[in-house]
Amino acid sequence: MEINGVEIEDTFAEGFPIKMARVQITAITERWALEAAREATGFGTSVIGCSAEAGIECIVGGEETPDGRPGVNILICNMGYKNLENSLLFRLGQCVLTAPTAAAFSGMPDAEKQFDTGKKLSFFGDGYQKQVELFGRSVWKIPLMSGDFIVEQNFGAVDAIAGGNFLIFAQNQAAGLLAAEAAVNAIGKIKGTITPFPGGIVASGSKVGSKYKFLKASTNTAFCTSLREDGVCTLAEEVSAVFEIVINGVSKEAISAAMKAGINAACHVPGVLKISAANYEGKLGTHQFPLRVVLE
Amino acid sequence: MEINGVEIEDTFAEGFPIKMARVQITAITERWALEAAREATGFGTSVIGCSAEAGIECIVGGEETPDGRPGVNILICNMGYKNLENSLLFRLGQCVLTAPTAAAFSGMPDAEKQFDTGKKLSFFGDGYQKQVELFGRSVWKIPLMSGDFIVEQNFGAVDAIAGGNFLIFAQNQAAGLLAAEAAVNAIGKIKGTITPFPGGIVASGSKVGSKYKFLKASTNTAFCTSLREDGVCTLAEEVSAVFEIVINGVSKEAISAAMKAGINAACHVPGVLKISAANYEGKLGTHQFPLRVVLE
Amino acid sequence: MEINGVEIEDTFAEGFPIKMARVQITAITERWALEAAREATGFGTSVIGCSAEAGIECIVGGEETPDGRPGVNILICNMGYKNLENSLLFRLGQCVLTAPTAAAFSGMPDAEKQFDTGKKLSFFGDGYQKQVELFGRSVWKIPLMSGDFIVEQNFGAVDAIAGGNFLIFAQNQAAGLLAAEAAVNAIGKIKGTITPFPGGIVASGSKVGSKYKFLKASTNTAFCTSLREDGVCTLAEEVSAVFEIVINGVSKEAISAAMKAGINAACHVPGVLKISAANYEGKLGTHQFPLRVVLE
Amino acid sequence: MEINGVEIEDTFAEGFPIKMARVQITAITERWALEAAREATGFGTSVIGCSAEAGIECIVGGEETPDGRPGVNILICNMGYKNLENSLLFRLGQCVLTAPTAAAFSGMPDAEKQFDTGKKLSFFGDGYQKQVELFGRSVWKIPLMSGDFIVEQNFGAVDAIAGGNFLIFAQNQAAGLLAAEAAVNAIGKIKGTITPFPGGIVASGSKVGSKYKFLKASTNTAFCTSLREDGVCTLAEEVSAVFEIVINGVSKEAISAAMKAGINAACHVPGVLKISAANYEGKLGTHQFPLRVVLE
Repeated sequence: MEINGVEIEDTFAEGFPIKMARVQITAITERWALEAAREATGFGTSVIGCSAEAGIECIVGGEETPDGRPGVNILICNMGYKNLENSLLFRLGQCVLTAPTAAAFSGMPDAEKQFDTGKKLSFFGDGYQKQVELFGRSVWKIPLMSGDFIVEQNFGAVDAIAGGNFLIFAQNQAAGLLAAEAAVNAIGKIKGTITPFPGGIVASGSKVGSKYKFLKASTNTAFCTSLREDGVCTLAEEVSAVFEIVINGVSKEAISAAMKAGINAACHVPGVLKISAANYEGKLGTHQFPLRVVLE
Repeated sequence: MEINGVEIEDTFAEGFPIKMARVQITAITERWALEAAREATGFGTSVIGCSAEAGIECIVGGEETPDGRPGVNILICNMGYKNLENSLLFRLGQCVLTAPTAAAFSGMPDAEKQFDTGKKLSFFGDGYQKQVELFGRSVWKIPLMSGDFIVEQNFGAVDAIAGGNFLIFAQNQAAGLLAAEAAVNAIGKIKGTITPFPGGIVASGSKVGSKYKFLKASTNTAFCTSLREDGVCTLAEEVSAVFEIVINGVSKEAISAAMKAGINAACHVPGVLKISAANYEGKLGTHQFPLRVVLE
Repeated sequence: MEINGVEIEDTFAEGFPIKMARVQITAITERWALEAAREATGFGTSVIGCSAEAGIECIVGGEETPDGRPGVNILICNMGYKNLENSLLFRLGQCVLTAPTAAAFSGMPDAEKQFDTGKKLSFFGDGYQKQVELFGRSVWKIPLMSGDFIVEQNFGAVDAIAGGNFLIFAQNQAAGLLAAEAAVNAIGKIKGTITPFPGGIVASGSKVGSKYKFLKASTNTAFCTSLREDGVCTLAEEVSAVFEIVINGVSKEAISAAMKAGINAACHVPGVLKISAANYEGKLGTHQFPLRVVLE
Repeated sequence: MEINGVEIEDTFAEGFPIKMARVQITAITERWALEAAREATGFGTSVIGCSAEAGIECIVGGEETPDGRPGVNILICNMGYKNLENSLLFRLGQCVLTAPTAAAFSGMPDAEKQFDTGKKLSFFGDGYQKQVELFGRSVWKIPLMSGDFIVEQNFGAVDAIAGGNFLIFAQNQAAGLLAAEAAVNAIGKIKGTITPFPGGIVASGSKVGSKYKFLKASTNTAFCTSLREDGVCTLAEEVSAVFEIVINGVSKEAISAAMKAGINAACHVPGVLKISAANYEGKLGTHQFPLRVVLE
């Protein structure tokens, strides 16, 4: 299979179950909603070493937010609901409650699983917090020096999928990077997905395991072009850089759509030589995303 | 005392000792160094609920970086060296090693305290990592799919100060916010300092303690304008929003310079009514920054 | 009428006919399409002193562009078709043909009025330009040092409307500015419209005519708060700043939708006191936009 | 000569005399000064088809501006003083006077050549403008709806140089583009210079003359890689894209420093194969910048 002359390897991405919450952050302007969202989703690339995987899903206008102000939807992911509840509590408490003019609403009000994060945060009001109905939501008004902080009582969360991915094989680092950026641009338009790594891109694709017992994952040596002389690199000679895009999504459909949009975008960048995907031969993940299928 | 017609209250900011490391992140372009830096300093507003306090110190040109590429200096702060070492390990490992084209160098090579963070990260190379001299630094080359990751062997850290601050009393939220932004713009030009909160601004100034025993800090009720009718708010009637700027700095001089620059900038914004500072009457902090002195 | 407690004056905005072309700029990434778009729409606030009125309409994904790359739609407006043709020729020739990796397509392929701007630009190819069918469009391939420039043969243009507007009366400059920014954020989501002034906002609302014969327009003295003591300012005492949002749109419906979205957004910002609109009592413009009607 | 393994061709850039003015735009925050600056410098790549060549020189803090607010310095260039005076009048009148909270000061107060642009703009005040001394400058206060516009009475201009340049030969478009971006990042730190093209980069390097008599310049066919089969392209086979950086500067020293910084930066990007420069064999320009000399 080929797109725009770029070979699509006949393989599949392997995803894993994860728990995911959507938070809708609003603010006085879009720009200030973005500031809060960036802080709240930072240090959130991989649960291997971060307290959560998090990213910006999309910007939303006032017609899509409870309080009618500009907003940004973020997605926060953890392996289990207990950790996710903690992530919500700390990321909202430290990065949204503290952010100028911000408010936080649940982006999954109908989910079965609900956390009373708003109530927990409300104690910051030192007894002056008030639970009220506002915009058809049950929210807490917490008095702050810069104005009241409005936070919804409950935040919903759902079973979702992490680890959707594809690999971009490129003639050089620059072509790979710009193709990866174009892919992230495209995925940014697919609702229900995030690309949690820096700028949406993984520079350091990994394999499971390591020669060191204390490490669960290590660099994907077979795709490291500087290991050609060591006889370890299995890449074709014309490939000199490989970038990975990792996608977490609210559903299999969302991840598939994101993979399709991202791969199509990457294949429009000159210097991209092949698209592949990372899997563990089906041994670890529970969701398989064959490239041929998502690209249909 | 007045600046530009704005009253400067005769009080002081109270700072606390903290441990601080500077990391110099370089990348193929300034923009990609910024992406890595934002991810690495995210979810880093306050050690009360974040694993570190972190922020971008400044952008640096190739003439100031070991590898001659564009860079961004970040500062990472923790209460103790052990936590700081962990912050370095996880924030660099998850957010810089993974960032496209990034490299990480110590921004405090001469500090007495040194952590071998680079060595610890190097195991990701699964045996193919190599320690070499490069740009006059001892670094590790870790093979990645997208090219080698260069990380310095040792990262230095020093005793520093957290909690430098001032308060902006404003006619309304908008005036306070724009004044706070102007202050953050100005502080951004003072080397050795960061403003770790979202967009550099604290919307939720706090007091020590709470009526709830499980809470160490709670909203600064005396300055909450929505608590006027409760008789709790002590603000003058014309004040309707208060924002706080919190500054961590490498030295007393750096924080003083940042406070001066920030306060001056805030006082140029129409609608700013008074500048004050937060302290605990000297009971808690070890560093005092009287506004009159820093503004001299 | 009131929105969110803000009075909406019972008046109307007065618009004028203008000619408008849409250009779809694509590039290797969204960011580079934006660079080209910003350059091409700069120095384009008002035809009183600029060669055109121009702005960014929206960002588009690869699924909406002929070449499948990320893109930005811009709108360019002139009083007559002859000037518009010149604007297209010079703005595309100087700011898009010269922009890295950019291509330019007509965003109004079905319009009755068509300019052969692509053909005119193609002479830059010095005889090596080629007209070809690509993506179902008739385009010119112009060889450049950095790769071929693809530009559509014909660019369509239509009768449109300029001068849709509303006024934001605010407690102070900061509140007015943030309300104006929130309005521009909201209008940015309405297809077929632009806000051509800097950051989308007019700081210097004007009245027709002047005491100086050589000036067609001058500052709107009745709304200048610094002219209170001169007895010229007719604003209520609590108003101390007025910002104007000017909207050009492809149709009456587009402008109405933009006015509605913008006014609603502005009314969510604390410190906004009243919304009005600028008109010339119907003497000059041919399109009237009563606030009550657009807000229905 | 080589930098970082990249060949530097032994040739020179050829510059031309131009007239240049520096305007210091200040605003309530850095961000709003930037909005005004971007609008005022847009559609300003080349005097061949734009009314001026213009760009952002640098961001300045309140300690460097007359009114103590954050600012942005822009440079505006024209072939003659008469055109430059027009550019100042129209770009400041349409893009800075209209920009929220902006003010405009001369960035060359000591220049011999002075234009009374502020006075000309002041008529917009319709008789209510006032000339006053402020911040040690003679300025006009022009009443606006959103607050007074402060503009300096006189704006200075000097003899300067246009057309400083260098060429980046790259393995592919992506490598050339990222190298060009890194170069623009570096040049951005050299005071007294701008790179007026979109994003600072020229995608469409030209030669003097054309087979068409009505065209003064046309694509640099010898460097167009898509013309290889036509036997016109003289580039080495491994080169597949060439980007040009064009620099205008206040002096020969400024341009030399910018060329040096930019070339050094470009040579750090993998995939860059050679650096050269554009000249007309000394027939046209009056300033020569040999690469060997500027790189000393």
